Amino acid sequence: MPRIVKVAAAQIGAVHRDSSRDSTISRMIDLLNTAVSKGAQLIVFPECAFTTFFPRYLFSDPAEMESYFEDDAGGNSIADSKNVKPLFDKAREAGVDIWVGYGERTSSGQHFNTAVYFCGKTGEVISKYRKVHVPGFVNPPFPGAEVHLEKRYFETGDLGFEAFRAPGLIPNALKANTGEEDTDGKGDAIIGSLICNDRRWPESWRPYGLQGAELVLVGFNTNGKADDIYKPRQPISLEDAREQALFHHRLSMQYNSYANSCFSISAGRCGMDDGKFDLIGGSSIVDSDGHIIAEAKTVDDEVVFAEIDLEECRKGKKDIFNFAVNRQPQTYGIITAQKGYVEPKLLF
Amino acid sequence: MPRIVKVAAAQIGAVHRDSSRDSTISRMIDLLNTAVSKGAQLIVFPECAFTTFFPRYLFSDPAEMESYFEDDAGGNSIADSKNVKPLFDKAREAGVDIWVGYGERTSSGQHFNTAVYFCGKTGEVISKYRKVHVPGFVNPPFPGAEVHLEKRYFETGDLGFEAFRAPGLIPNALKANTGEEDTDGKGDAIIGSLICNDRRWPESWRPYGLQGAELVLVGFNTNGKADDIYKPRQPISLEDAREQALFHHRLSMQYNSYANSCFSISAGRCGMDDGKFDLIGGSSIVDSDGHIIAEAKTVDDEVVFAEIDLEECRKGKKDIFNFAVNRQPQTYGIITAQKGYVEPKLLF
Repeated sequence: MPRIVKVAAAQIGAVHRDSSRDSTISRMIDLLNTAVSKGAQLIVFPECAFTTFFPRYLFSDPAEMESYFEDDAGGNSIADSKNVKPLFDKAREAGVDIWVGYGERTSSGQHFNTAVYFCGKTGEVISKYRKVHVPGFVNPPFPGAEVHLEKRYFETGDLGFEAFRAPGLIPNALKANTGEEDTDGKGDAIIGSLICNDRRWPESWRPYGLQGAELVLVGFNTNGKADDIYKPRQPISLEDAREQALFHHRLSMQYNSYANSCFSISAGRCGMDDGKFDLIGGSSIVDSDGHIIAEAKTVDDEVVFAEIDLEECRKGKKDIFNFAVNRQPQTYGIITAQKGYVEPKLLF
Repeated sequence: MPRIVKVAAAQIGAVHRDSSRDSTISRMIDLLNTAVSKGAQLIVFPECAFTTFFPRYLFSDPAEMESYFEDDAGGNSIADSKNVKPLFDKAREAGVDIWVGYGERTSSGQHFNTAVYFCGKTGEVISKYRKVHVPGFVNPPFPGAEVHLEKRYFETGDLGFEAFRAPGLIPNALKANTGEEDTDGKGDAIIGSLICNDRRWPESWRPYGLQGAELVLVGFNTNGKADDIYKPRQPISLEDAREQALFHHRLSMQYNSYANSCFSISAGRCGMDDGKFDLIGGSSIVDSDGHIIAEAKTVDDEVVFAEIDLEECRKGKKDIFNFAVNRQPQTYGIITAQKGYVEPKLLF
């Protein structure tokens, strides 16, 4: 029996250092309205969607750094935060679910790169994820380096990879561990969240795969690829730099969707921030076989829409990626035992 | 300083149920000679390279099943086995390394899907790998199903994922854990082995990545993709079936090479066995950024050759895939703790 969901990635074009939150949220509401007019039930927004991608700056003024974060005392608070409330109100009004990334400042003053899943029907944040693979630097490797100082501004996410079910998104839910129809009325599509660099790490996807995820949601801010970040940028064209970064974005989304037999939706912040910092587009919807079924055509505000049938996930999950039958965790020990490189045993 | 190695994948076309080992080995020696004439120092042959891919048959005669295996009492014996010795002798004579897959019958009567790395300079087998992710079935899911009965004929590999260094393949070896030049004279290129279905599993690649692998070698036998193996084949053209299977082959090789910052070489048995069982080609050499740099153009005997610079691996290994800096194994526990699916926690 088909299990159809209508989904959208809401890609956001250039947002500058001096862009106001209000203007950005107004653009996000336009995107939401466009997606809703196409019939979308779930709309995915980018990582740190409410502001420019501030980790590129080395701030001299701590107050400016703090101004890019939202106060989030836990629970539903981000949806009630006056800075960003209009977006969540609109989702509640339309009865659609949204996933959105933002800089989170906790009540105890910690800073995380966070995303929430907000259920439009219940009006509640039902899942929160904090980015685990925080990339980049604490300090620029050389003055003026075009790098992201995420390790300076964000702590490592401490919520793990907890899949969740979205209530009311789709009927005919299935149990993850048996594939049987879920008749207790509690279940629905199984969803996981990742943020940007997480998507490059198979270790981020597999925990969701093991929880039976049918849909993985990803927000990102990715710049055109420099040849070697430890050196000033090589003379490479903007187009080539974008194409190289897009290649790795697509490869990561497509392979991991295939290897976990899940659909994925990625939404990017893109375009030329401040007229000089280039971020790739390529927001996409990928099927559980690894094929891109919809992809952004611009590097500007754009809704990427698709109707997907979550039932397709079962083909892989019961066959080649039937984990219970085919995984061999007794041979994977080094993956969790070891963080960095270890010398291979010498055989001669 | 560049660290250049000249490598080849030796793809083998149709080999039938009634093809003799002698005829196949003669074709393999031709491929070896062609690769050597191009300057290859390392030549990778397919999985189960000496015979047709016999796991597709349900044998009524156990003796026929046993006839596809090589006796291997351990150590160097496969290179001295009279069935296949001429290939190893030729490699020794040419002073080149070869990697080759075969059905292994141990002295205690166990059966594995195995590959060895044979060093032409020392004349020794220096590494043996036994396929961990044995796919397919013990019994056909329905009479005449086009599936591989590997689970019937092979035990799960029991040697883990042990990377190794190939002596004399290339000067200027680096230590895996520091990236510093290895001055003790023992080290050389760091290599890992995978067989066919293993390449689809990120858990197979990562243990090699964690040992600093610069080169992962893969042999395969992959048939055109049926729409659903639990049903008789859907009306899908031979070309479409091949294209779908090639898509997943490429995706697996390219992504995992990128995510582990290693080169990879894949060699396939391909073509139309017995005039009716189709196996894809697509033998390839992929760089450490995930790009295909050489790929087979035929589904027949063909040498795929490239000159690769292992130094390129360092770009990823010191940057985005610097594991010691960027992996977060404290969040990966489920990957080793759990074999199959588990229900996500209910959040509402």
